[in-house]
Amino acid sequence: MPATPAYDDLTRTYDRLHRLGHLQALAGWDQAANMPPKGSAARAAALAEMAALLHRMRTDPALAAAIERAEREALDDLQRANLREIRRDWRHANALPESLVQRRQLAASRCEHAWRAQRPANDWAGFLGNFRELLAIAREEAERLSQQQGLARYDALMDRFEPGMRCATVDRVFGDLRQWLPGLIERVRARQAQQTVIAPVGPFPLAAQRRLCERVIGLLGFDFDAGRLDVSTHPFCGGVPEDVRMTTRFREDDFLGSLMGTVHETGHGRYEQNLPRAWLGQPVAEARSMAVHESCSLAFEMQLGSHPGFIARLAPLLAEAFGAQPAFEPANLQRLMTRVQPGLIRVDADEVTYPAHIVLRYEIERPLIEGAIEAEDIPALWDAKMAELLGLDTRGNWRDGPLQDVHWPEGLFGYFPCYTLGAMFAAQWFASIRRRHPDLDARIHAGDFAPVFDWLREQIWSQGSRWTTDELAQRASGEALNPAHFKAHLQARYLG
Amino acid sequence: MPATPAYDDLTRTYDRLHRLGHLQALAGWDQAANMPPKGSAARAAALAEMAALLHRMRTDPALAAAIERAEREALDDLQRANLREIRRDWRHANALPESLVQRRQLAASRCEHAWRAQRPANDWAGFLGNFRELLAIAREEAERLSQQQGLARYDALMDRFEPGMRCATVDRVFGDLRQWLPGLIERVRARQAQQTVIAPVGPFPLAAQRRLCERVIGLLGFDFDAGRLDVSTHPFCGGVPEDVRMTTRFREDDFLGSLMGTVHETGHGRYEQNLPRAWLGQPVAEARSMAVHESCSLAFEMQLGSHPGFIARLAPLLAEAFGAQPAFEPANLQRLMTRVQPGLIRVDADEVTYPAHIVLRYEIERPLIEGAIEAEDIPALWDAKMAELLGLDTRGNWRDGPLQDVHWPEGLFGYFPCYTLGAMFAAQWFASIRRRHPDLDARIHAGDFAPVFDWLREQIWSQGSRWTTDELAQRASGEALNPAHFKAHLQARYLG
Repeated sequence: MPATPAYDDLTRTYDRLHRLGHLQALAGWDQAANMPPKGSAARAAALAEMAALLHRMRTDPALAAAIERAEREALDDLQRANLREIRRDWRHANALPESLVQRRQLAASRCEHAWRAQRPANDWAGFLGNFRELLAIAREEAERLSQQQGLARYDALMDRFEPGMRCATVDRVFGDLRQWLPGLIERVRARQAQQTVIAPVGPFPLAAQRRLCERVIGLLGFDFDAGRLDVSTHPFCGGVPEDVRMTTRFREDDFLGSLMGTVHETGHGRYEQNLPRAWLGQPVAEARSMAVHESCSLAFEMQLGSHPGFIARLAPLLAEAFGAQPAFEPANLQRLMTRVQPGLIRVDADEVTYPAHIVLRYEIERPLIEGAIEAEDIPALWDAKMAELLGLDTRGNWRDGPLQDVHWPEGLFGYFPCYTLGAMFAAQWFASIRRRHPDLDARIHAGDFAPVFDWLREQIWSQGSRWTTDELAQRASGEALNPAHFKAHLQARYLG
Repeated sequence: MPATPAYDDLTRTYDRLHRLGHLQALAGWDQAANMPPKGSAARAAALAEMAALLHRMRTDPALAAAIERAEREALDDLQRANLREIRRDWRHANALPESLVQRRQLAASRCEHAWRAQRPANDWAGFLGNFRELLAIAREEAERLSQQQGLARYDALMDRFEPGMRCATVDRVFGDLRQWLPGLIERVRARQAQQTVIAPVGPFPLAAQRRLCERVIGLLGFDFDAGRLDVSTHPFCGGVPEDVRMTTRFREDDFLGSLMGTVHETGHGRYEQNLPRAWLGQPVAEARSMAVHESCSLAFEMQLGSHPGFIARLAPLLAEAFGAQPAFEPANLQRLMTRVQPGLIRVDADEVTYPAHIVLRYEIERPLIEGAIEAEDIPALWDAKMAELLGLDTRGNWRDGPLQDVHWPEGLFGYFPCYTLGAMFAAQWFASIRRRHPDLDARIHAGDFAPVFDWLREQIWSQGSRWTTDELAQRASGEALNPAHFKAHLQARYLG
């Protein structure tokens, strides 16, 4: 008789969930990267069946009883942390009946699939038809999670992606951001107005772009024997920790968006590839949260990838891929890659204007979930906030407005804040790495990225979900989330 | 209360199995076409978990009871056929305990994955290490199926792929083949010795090959909105009827192998794409058998694809893809594509020597399953039979010998005979099409393949598993399997 029979039972169940979730993750990746259009209905049905099955496993009454019994067993700290994450997973799963899970999956598959054609066609009215149904389901979900957990509805949705994060904190952090960001953007733009930036001259052949991306991903330490790079409409990092599937998209007239997008996904990819192998299959081995995930991708894309030292390493690779041209001179490349320019598209935004896109989405989806506004109200709000925050006119351009992101078509509400919280954590991590390595800038200039990789592996990647986000940040950097590092980073890089 | 409650219950269970099987099929395709090496262990574990889950669903005691009750319900002919196929599926699943299914899946994944490196390394000894375990499991499986069904052990394995087929028939058909095939090969080779054949001059760029393949697949009516073509070591047709995943492999020095391999897979692919949509999810909607599947692929590759009229259509496409050259002149192309040449590799074999490869495999794997020989005995038997049947020396070349096929590394025993039975059915189908359309040759020459597609859709594809193989052949062509059509086809094409 083992000392911890109930706990051991739980770990067996979660190993099974991990193995079946593998097939689900793979099918999700394939849906975005490979699936032909007529495969959609069968895939949606298959994914709904699997979601229902996993949901049934998570809501098996025996599981609740085992969790209670395991709480009274003699567990070590790691087991205790795993049990905490199991309980969290259990709590989320058991707030929702199977029929709701299945309806959400079907509605999201339908909405997302139709959106792929509706977005290029600028078809907001067509999108609304599916989206209203998906929103109604999301509200029902928020209400149930809210009642179960004693949280406000949007908090309850956000908690799925960012455990412990509440609107009170987001309001404080984003409220502060709203104070200084517009002024910062103005000062940076005034300063950059005097700069000459030479634009790269295309076309940039897709095959050369792909080779360049693969080379840079390699420099960043991604293990191609345990993952792939493919193409999808909306870049993402999917698959499983043992086989990470990153995607990007290529445009012949612009290589930089795809390249830096790929650097971003590589940050996600290395987090997944370096999660604690020994505990893999258990909730404690999973990535801590979406903001922490985003801190890893932005540590790669913004902190390291847009660092002058990294850019100096990139320059010769560009010349090799596309032929030498004046735009690839390191100082010019640096100006190009740190150019601040308010634009319509979130994923193309520079790191200074990006938070404005997030604030906008947060300010729309929160009242949407709370029922204060309806789906029909989105375009007018979008137009008003884009004018207010970034001075842009978006009227009638739904394609590059509320139709631009995959999140809403997939029914993902409460996720957007994580992007900017992640940017803040990434700045906080680099401040900590710089304290450990006062010569960090020189080492990056010398092409030695080990201080970054080693710190992230040791402090973040390998920790999985062993600690709460606050504890993780505290242990790694000496303090919980502190947005001052992000502000200091932007000031140093753009006004220093 | 519906009139057929037990039957309706069964159809719901099989719809679920179909949806979960979708994810299994996709993961199997991905494993061959995409998966990086370090993903192997997690994928094997995930597939084993899913195999065990599906096995549990198929062995639920409630299912047996429902089948018994459904037998007494008022079913129409189609439902009756579906119930027959459900019973067949149930019988196969319930012969094997879950632990055996899981062990087999794990052993097969391990063996197949290692084989991918062992084959190029000519590492027979390394392969034996995994293969012995897999063979032991296959024998255990054969023994159980044999006891349950009152069939001989190899018959019991073969019955999974070719329901109703027995060694007695295979012995008779292959025994007859052994009588006349060596003489036919000799006569054809003597006749071809006087022919001049101009070889195509490479290299043939892979991108051009891929475009050519996609164009020819399109001519053959494959629906690219409901399927894909990708690359894998061993070409196959996988995925699901709603989303067919075909694979091929490209070599820069030879386009013909890949092209005709793709034509072959397209025959499989169209069968899957044209299975009866209304019944999809039910066993009665599945492809009848592996020999019937192969009859579809060989109807495309050999009957239609190597027809002089089709080759005349192909010739200008080759010139367009690779530039004009003397080898692409239709008469030369015809000689090239019907060249008979004993060789080591089954999948590269011409249609005249191909059956010799199958007879050899049948004569090895049958005693292997029966325990009359051991895995260690394979190379010597292989060498002897290759010398006897095709006059070739294969000693020490395991890579191009018993390591060449994916079947044994995957634990697929009893499958090989289907290839040649399929070739015989394909000839029988074309004889029937020719009776309906006496102008068939002229129409193929005119680029009108509709007589072939329409007959196959009507008589074979759309019938799914509604009839037994004997009934299907009888209804489609007026007789059960008759190998005389195959012999007549070879004589007409190669000695006519």
